[in-house]
Amino acid sequence: MILPISPSVSQLANPNAGQTQLYPVHTSRAWCQVAQKFTGGIGNKLCGECPARAGEGVEHGRSVASGSRGGNVTFSPPHPRQRSRGFLAGVGQGRGSRDRRRLTNLLPACDGERPTLAFLQDVMDILLQYVVKSFDRSTKVIDFHYPNELLQEYNWELADQPQNLEEILMHCQTTLKYAIKTGHPRYFNQLSTGLDMVGLAADWLTSTANTNMFTYEIAPVFVLLEYVTLKKMREIIGWPGGSGDGIFSPGGAISNMYAMLIARFKMFPEVKEKGMAAVPRLIAFTSEHSHFSLKKGAAALGIGTDSVILIKCDERGKMVPSDLERRILEAKQKGFVPFLVSATAGTTVYGAFDPLLAVADICKKYKIWMHVDAAWGGGLLMSRKHKWKLSGVERANSVTWNPHKMMGVPLQCSALLVREEGLMQSCNQMHASYLFQQDKHYDLSYDTGDKALQCGRHVDVFKLWLMWRAKGTTGFEAHIDKCLELAEYLYNIIKNREGYEMVFDGKPQHTNVCFWYVPPSLRVLEDNEERMNRLSKVAPVIKARMMEYGTTMVSYQPLGDKVNFFRMVISNPAATHQDIDFLIEEIERLGQDL
Amino acid sequence: MILPISPSVSQLANPNAGQTQLYPVHTSRAWCQVAQKFTGGIGNKLCGECPARAGEGVEHGRSVASGSRGGNVTFSPPHPRQRSRGFLAGVGQGRGSRDRRRLTNLLPACDGERPTLAFLQDVMDILLQYVVKSFDRSTKVIDFHYPNELLQEYNWELADQPQNLEEILMHCQTTLKYAIKTGHPRYFNQLSTGLDMVGLAADWLTSTANTNMFTYEIAPVFVLLEYVTLKKMREIIGWPGGSGDGIFSPGGAISNMYAMLIARFKMFPEVKEKGMAAVPRLIAFTSEHSHFSLKKGAAALGIGTDSVILIKCDERGKMVPSDLERRILEAKQKGFVPFLVSATAGTTVYGAFDPLLAVADICKKYKIWMHVDAAWGGGLLMSRKHKWKLSGVERANSVTWNPHKMMGVPLQCSALLVREEGLMQSCNQMHASYLFQQDKHYDLSYDTGDKALQCGRHVDVFKLWLMWRAKGTTGFEAHIDKCLELAEYLYNIIKNREGYEMVFDGKPQHTNVCFWYVPPSLRVLEDNEERMNRLSKVAPVIKARMMEYGTTMVSYQPLGDKVNFFRMVISNPAATHQDIDFLIEEIERLGQDL
Repeated sequence: MILPISPSVSQLANPNAGQTQLYPVHTSRAWCQVAQKFTGGIGNKLCGECPARAGEGVEHGRSVASGSRGGNVTFSPPHPRQRSRGFLAGVGQGRGSRDRRRLTNLLPACDGERPTLAFLQDVMDILLQYVVKSFDRSTKVIDFHYPNELLQEYNWELADQPQNLEEILMHCQTTLKYAIKTGHPRYFNQLSTGLDMVGLAADWLTSTANTNMFTYEIAPVFVLLEYVTLKKMREIIGWPGGSGDGIFSPGGAISNMYAMLIARFKMFPEVKEKGMAAVPRLIAFTSEHSHFSLKKGAAALGIGTDSVILIKCDERGKMVPSDLERRILEAKQKGFVPFLVSATAGTTVYGAFDPLLAVADICKKYKIWMHVDAAWGGGLLMSRKHKWKLSGVERANSVTWNPHKMMGVPLQCSALLVREEGLMQSCNQMHASYLFQQDKHYDLSYDTGDKALQCGRHVDVFKLWLMWRAKGTTGFEAHIDKCLELAEYLYNIIKNREGYEMVFDGKPQHTNVCFWYVPPSLRVLEDNEERMNRLSKVAPVIKARMMEYGTTMVSYQPLGDKVNFFRMVISNPAATHQDIDFLIEEIERLGQDL
Repeated sequence: MILPISPSVSQLANPNAGQTQLYPVHTSRAWCQVAQKFTGGIGNKLCGECPARAGEGVEHGRSVASGSRGGNVTFSPPHPRQRSRGFLAGVGQGRGSRDRRRLTNLLPACDGERPTLAFLQDVMDILLQYVVKSFDRSTKVIDFHYPNELLQEYNWELADQPQNLEEILMHCQTTLKYAIKTGHPRYFNQLSTGLDMVGLAADWLTSTANTNMFTYEIAPVFVLLEYVTLKKMREIIGWPGGSGDGIFSPGGAISNMYAMLIARFKMFPEVKEKGMAAVPRLIAFTSEHSHFSLKKGAAALGIGTDSVILIKCDERGKMVPSDLERRILEAKQKGFVPFLVSATAGTTVYGAFDPLLAVADICKKYKIWMHVDAAWGGGLLMSRKHKWKLSGVERANSVTWNPHKMMGVPLQCSALLVREEGLMQSCNQMHASYLFQQDKHYDLSYDTGDKALQCGRHVDVFKLWLMWRAKGTTGFEAHIDKCLELAEYLYNIIKNREGYEMVFDGKPQHTNVCFWYVPPSLRVLEDNEERMNRLSKVAPVIKARMMEYGTTMVSYQPLGDKVNFFRMVISNPAATHQDIDFLIEEIERLGQDL
């Protein structure tokens, strides 16, 4: 019944999709000519060590047509045969090309300016080509290969000897050839999808600036932008004047771990020096649909996963407040100390929003730290239409909010926001005197590194900040509203469509739409164990076929007593109604014979 | 005696350095013409939704000279007056320019291909200009402003309304104007310095691929490259056949925390469920010169900083093995359980290498997990000349090694290597069924996400892998050897030079050279408290002046009973002997009046 998946399906579907694209050589050549001009005499200043060679700059790099110093620039595209051999083949041609091939000619080498610009522009051509293809519905989302195939298909090994720049460019092309196009309009596989052009530009800039967030000294602008951006996010959460604290951390799991760490410290500051041995048994509460990072954090922090109590959810995946209160009382009766409730705003699978106001009341009553894991749902705070779903978030003590999910910021961009200022610093600081010198000549409150768990910290804020400037809050709002509208569109199509069963009733609150596709052969069966067993195998096979064909990707999973079902999520700004239609057609095409 | 630092010094030093550079418009215009050709008909396939507009692609975007479809391409640079107003001013001119200004015209918009390519190329021009300037010794390392000045100098605030693309480009320029040039040949401030061109290209590609390391499904190539690269690193450490485990983590502090977490789990696996309450008091040992992340990790993991015993160092900053053994015995006598020794290979300040063989013997004798924090020193394993300094590392149970430090890989790139395979997985896995489905169609051993503390994980491997392909192991070796040679050069110059005192005797083992500069007025003083007091103020003032002038940057700190001294480190591939000479001259120029 279940068809075997053949690796050759992808070739049948789209015989040309896997081919390496050939790039014309002339784009970067033209650019290179011009670059020479706009960088002016800088090259001459570069080489303190070898003034004798400084003047030779123009001789290096690729062959350059004459006239490049004049007003109008003319150049000839490569000969057709040369072009047909592709960009990489063309590189070796012409005067000066041998030099250009060598890594050691790039900056900081003497006269390295022009070879460097040519090389980086070549890389950029490859990247831009990929960007354009990412949005092209006629290309595959993925050119799938099994791990062993992919290991054998190319030589990925590391060696003693260097490779030349042409080989490096080839590696870039090959890497992208097999990469998944996460910006593709039909990529729905994760909570983070899409490729924002301003976010991408900002991430390139971040790489180029190549610095570290620990002090103002070495990241002045980025530290200020983190300050400005976190304050804005706290305002949106609803904390008066945006007061409080926060940090960008490497992902939602770490943000949630921070919350747990700070909540524990707030209640028992001695834990920092004395460890868990000095404190009573602490209990954290979160819903059975919450993210696994709560348990992971508890394991890491020495609290233990047994001390994370999973609270019941209703049929929509929302935490049941009465069960929360019951379990809190139960813990207290045993002499344990409830120290944290983590409510979820946007669960991973159902997209459910826990009733934050009710949870806040309970936390207040029992004096428990209220954390809201809004990694996925936080984006809805940007929408006047949808932010009511997070009502009560302003009463939280801490909030995880991942702009890299619903807001489409490139990975990684996760914020932990804390209502009480100074707590993160007290909790985590170790006063490393070689980094956080107390006798610096500027205001030390901007040296935020000592409140982090990390020492070095990647710059994650700039892409969010720049996107926010570009879109405005209203732009994020429009994006969020559109994605939610698309989810509703999908829901409305399939809720009564033959062959579909919804995992839970009612309109989705987030963009998560959870459903089973029931192939014709299963529709006639009674609702018994055999049917369940067969149904559980449908989504994995359809998903495998999607990947083989490379046409679209959507996630599936079991949950509790519910066998494998599709979880559609929409955070991709490129997705349209037609893409939703396509998804439905594709599921039916790939699943009808099962 | 100590001169006040005036914010205006920087203007006096280099009145033009702070000016915004103007960029000619014609680079991207030329590129844009060509891009139109090489992307061919893709634009027409982009817009499933609005076929009627698809054909209009060529009308959008910047004004394009005629003839762009032919063989030879000709274009006119902008009118001189236009150019003198700079790139951003020029953007608004010409046909179609209004469209180009708008964010909403970028992909995934219909006909968004050309405006996108033009915008991204504009960004790239700004970045390339910055790259070239980074290596230019005539530019400032930093255009320093105090935090409040910088907050006032520019409007950094986030607003409801969008901004146009010209403003976005201006933000990119401004951000880079105030950024620190971490690739500048005279930037020595941190362990991570330099800007590698292949690493940069790889990081751009990583941003463009914008995916997540948790599963093979969505990061097939990167997951394989992590596998290949970690295996190679383990081979270099000396574990037979490169066997073992590992992960790229967000920085050395987190890598060290992983080691502590895994060591604890190995000894008491029940801690995962039961927490620290279920285990005896655990004690970790590390030297008094070790990185603060060991204490930070102990605080976070519920072990407590009091349970981190700091072992004495000799005068060169190396852990004293006899003191280690004494303290282990002491802990055992108290009924505590020693579970981890973290030896350091390359301490942060002195660059000292703990005696790993002796530490390994002790760990073996007492059955304690041996971790080596080689975040800073690990790079020396690539050098046949210097790797003996890490002799014994092959006997470690885990090793932290940050290629983003001595190997010049862009931030962030930190690896934790573990000798025993499978332990990370058992320690951290939570079996999230929505992410790590067990019925996928490929080999699940490549879904490495469940061994991480993080859920989402940034792709940090590609830049290391690509640099390794470009340089070969021998290229890294040459870089390491050169940096160490430069450190020795500096040491040889200043060890007997008037006005310098070395913090410790003897040739540096790493590139750390620690010294006091003693201004003439202090040279005549007796070695008493007043002199110490005054000496402690010298380095901060010289450093502040360095930043004001923007000429160079080097770190300083006190350590133990030693007052503020300079810690010079060299990991920057751009640095030369002349830059070392410059540093000495600059310190003397800025400090002689103190």
